[in-house]
Amino acid sequence: MPYWWPSVDTTDTSGYCLSWRLAVESNNIRAWRTVPTQCSRHVEAYMTAGQYQRDLNLIVDNIFTYIDSIHLPYDGFDAWIFDVDDTCISNLFYYKGKRYGCEPFDPLAFKAWALNGACPAIPDVLRLFNKLIQTGFKVFLVTGRNEDTLGQATVQNLDDQGFFGYERLFLRNDSYKGQSAITYKSDIRRQLVGEGYRIWGNVGDQWSDLQGDYVGNRTFKLPNPMYFVP
Amino acid sequence: MPYWWPSVDTTDTSGYCLSWRLAVESNNIRAWRTVPTQCSRHVEAYMTAGQYQRDLNLIVDNIFTYIDSIHLPYDGFDAWIFDVDDTCISNLFYYKGKRYGCEPFDPLAFKAWALNGACPAIPDVLRLFNKLIQTGFKVFLVTGRNEDTLGQATVQNLDDQGFFGYERLFLRNDSYKGQSAITYKSDIRRQLVGEGYRIWGNVGDQWSDLQGDYVGNRTFKLPNPMYFVP
Repeated sequence: MPYWWPSVDTTDTSGYCLSWRLAVESNNIRAWRTVPTQCSRHVEAYMTAGQYQRDLNLIVDNIFTYIDSIHLPYDGFDAWIFDVDDTCISNLFYYKGKRYGCEPFDPLAFKAWALNGACPAIPDVLRLFNKLIQTGFKVFLVTGRNEDTLGQATVQNLDDQGFFGYERLFLRNDSYKGQSAITYKSDIRRQLVGEGYRIWGNVGDQWSDLQGDYVGNRTFKLPNPMYFVP
Repeated sequence: MPYWWPSVDTTDTSGYCLSWRLAVESNNIRAWRTVPTQCSRHVEAYMTAGQYQRDLNLIVDNIFTYIDSIHLPYDGFDAWIFDVDDTCISNLFYYKGKRYGCEPFDPLAFKAWALNGACPAIPDVLRLFNKLIQTGFKVFLVTGRNEDTLGQATVQNLDDQGFFGYERLFLRNDSYKGQSAITYKSDIRRQLVGEGYRIWGNVGDQWSDLQGDYVGNRTFKLPNPMYFVP
């Protein structure tokens, strides 16, 4: 080891969890099933003590700068895409009961939670959503939630939380059953581009929202250290 | 604001710089010219007090896991790509004199530094490089450094630091002058794929190393909060 290279203290849990979270957010660690047990407290502190909110705030401020730089044709075909879960509305309360992602995904419990329609808005994303609609963008929401079982609860939840005025909400129907999020969401975006829309921006908490085809002119990865969607 | 949403303390410089750095690493902030002045100390501490090294360590450990999962055909066409600057060898000492990126890029000073051939190896990346060569991969180095002016110094610097046994080093020659890194590096990768190589992995400290065409089966973004290459 060269003299100038600090040695890594492998017993430093907080440092390890910072590295783990950065590797998740920069898409270096993929297909992870649960948060490492030793990072439960780290993720709790990150999500609830202000840094998550600060991260969102800075990203949304930067998106505002980007939006202000766009000269819209105003022909009604300027589109923007949002994911729903932990992008527009938050599942933080649900994941609190799952040790912030240290427990494996529990499809039945999550379905029950989502059916309640009680996910709160993520304030910075609502601020962005409203800015886009005021500016003249057509906003499309694309979610992996099942259309038959969760469609009604999702529409109601979004509406209750102030997400209205969007152009369309796409939920996963039977024809997309079993497909990865990248495949399903690429297909939705292909439809939109086929209809003539220009996708200026695409915002999601998962890399699978932002990869594949027709991802958009700019993509924005919101933080989410609690779960991974392939 | 909902009651559960912590308010953001905008006077917290350390929190701001953490957010800024995360936004850079997750490719949300692009085309930035300098590190925000108030983050000079944050970036210095990150780069020199151990967290940068810990981040690299965790990423390289994860790449080892990925490599061990690959069943190589061993036909001599299994390729891996590395960037050079702040991927194989470090410019940290140079950037120390530029307030860790708070000063704008200085092409003449950087050229003089690179001509010295004194960039130290990044130990975790050298560990990965050696593992790949031992495993039977053909390793290609692709750098935006100018071939005529820096070719010799770069080859010597890499050799001095233990980077030998690679298949080819690509430097930027006149035919790529003025092209963005994404275009230039995509073109090199297209050549390799045209020669029959399978690109299993691609490692760089810039998103422009990892975007464009033929990026590889897996890409790995090493941290670099000191500068941005378009």
